[in-house]
Amino acid sequence: MQTLHIIKIGGNVMDNPQILEKFIEDFSAITSPKILVHGGGKLATELAEKLGIPQTMVEGRRITDAETLKITTMVYAGLINKQLVAQLQAKGIGALGLSGADNNLILSEKRNHSSINFGFVGDIKSINTSFLSSLLSQNIVPVICSITHDGNGVLLNTNADTIATELAIALSSIYKVHLSFCFEKKGVLKDITDEESYIPQIEKTVYQHLKSEKVISDGMLPKLENAFQAIEKGVSKVLIYHAKYLHTLENDFIGTELYG
Amino acid sequence: MQTLHIIKIGGNVMDNPQILEKFIEDFSAITSPKILVHGGGKLATELAEKLGIPQTMVEGRRITDAETLKITTMVYAGLINKQLVAQLQAKGIGALGLSGADNNLILSEKRNHSSINFGFVGDIKSINTSFLSSLLSQNIVPVICSITHDGNGVLLNTNADTIATELAIALSSIYKVHLSFCFEKKGVLKDITDEESYIPQIEKTVYQHLKSEKVISDGMLPKLENAFQAIEKGVSKVLIYHAKYLHTLENDFIGTELYG
Repeated sequence: MQTLHIIKIGGNVMDNPQILEKFIEDFSAITSPKILVHGGGKLATELAEKLGIPQTMVEGRRITDAETLKITTMVYAGLINKQLVAQLQAKGIGALGLSGADNNLILSEKRNHSSINFGFVGDIKSINTSFLSSLLSQNIVPVICSITHDGNGVLLNTNADTIATELAIALSSIYKVHLSFCFEKKGVLKDITDEESYIPQIEKTVYQHLKSEKVISDGMLPKLENAFQAIEKGVSKVLIYHAKYLHTLENDFIGTELYG
Repeated sequence: MQTLHIIKIGGNVMDNPQILEKFIEDFSAITSPKILVHGGGKLATELAEKLGIPQTMVEGRRITDAETLKITTMVYAGLINKQLVAQLQAKGIGALGLSGADNNLILSEKRNHSSINFGFVGDIKSINTSFLSSLLSQNIVPVICSITHDGNGVLLNTNADTIATELAIALSSIYKVHLSFCFEKKGVLKDITDEESYIPQIEKTVYQHLKSEKVISDGMLPKLENAFQAIEKGVSKVLIYHAKYLHTLENDFIGTELYG
């Protein structure tokens, strides 16, 4: 099977023009088929502030009322998505911006939580993999934002990490998927205060051990749990690293590599 | 050749939820291949107002400084585009939202005007017709917003009427294109105060006559000039009518039909 890179960038990449520029360049240089997944960084929060719309975060997730949904749709699917696409086009990449609503790419359902009303937040139900593989086979590079839809005309805010993970799982029947999470640390750190303490490789059984020994910080645990679940469901590798090391993805990788 | 409908909706359609809902329903019922083109209506102006960013219009065009470009990108490519796509998906239509940057759909150049600095406003240079015809042949319905790009990473605000017209011309080598402008009047009116005075059909030589007799209002003239230019360049028909009569497009048309 052909290798497919699914690369998720976090807000910190998009909030820093220099890091973003280098990221765009390095992403463009990747020779395998690739998909970019992005959230919105600080821009959505900033816009909400300017418009006087209070934002509430619960368990790291944005409570999305109707006004906040408009803001995230504008910022994620509009501003950030099209800026990324235009910048990739400038590097000669056939980038195509997509939300989950476009050609029914990602169908989700409004989250039904027993105690918290998350508002217009969607949990993924299905992914249009045939559309994605058709685009990839045409050398088109999907740039996917974290807005999905429910199939009944309602847009839903959906976590970008989850989108990247679910895309990776869904496409692992067609491709050998390498799922990348680019963020602001060198990888999974043993000592949160020491950038150089990143663990180059973590095999699943070793992870269980590190977890029980509490070597891995709490903030990183949900990411790793999701990563190993993805590997169990067919994803070939999950890579966690600093966005500035994207150029090492295909050679002499710097960061943390997770495998089953 | 197969008939292709390119339908442009104005702000007045999008600003009225009832008209929009009917429009979405009627658009979904069109049996031929179709493309939807939209601008932004009042939403961009409203958002700019809330954010305290002054807006200047010159000759009916928005002067687009860097902040205004962000607003139009958020509103056109984000909010409105994705809401339209989600609503069409709810009708079972394979809608796919696109800006001109996506897969290099519409390449434009920053307007270089001798006396007015329009800012980030783009004039169209080329259209990726093979991408569009590939989508149409897959039964995908492109929903195109009025944001283009210059190929060097810069997004540009581009008039939606012009986009619809240029798309119609470019695709007329592959399809028999019927170009629709849906707005808030029944058609080209003889008497601007009388909705029922719309002219059902205008042939080009008759138009020249009506123009010289000053039967047609000044506001309508540029639209008609562009329409007849499009017809000269291969577009089969141009139709100007009220959005609420979209359901008459394929049968017993109500509105003004222009032909060469």
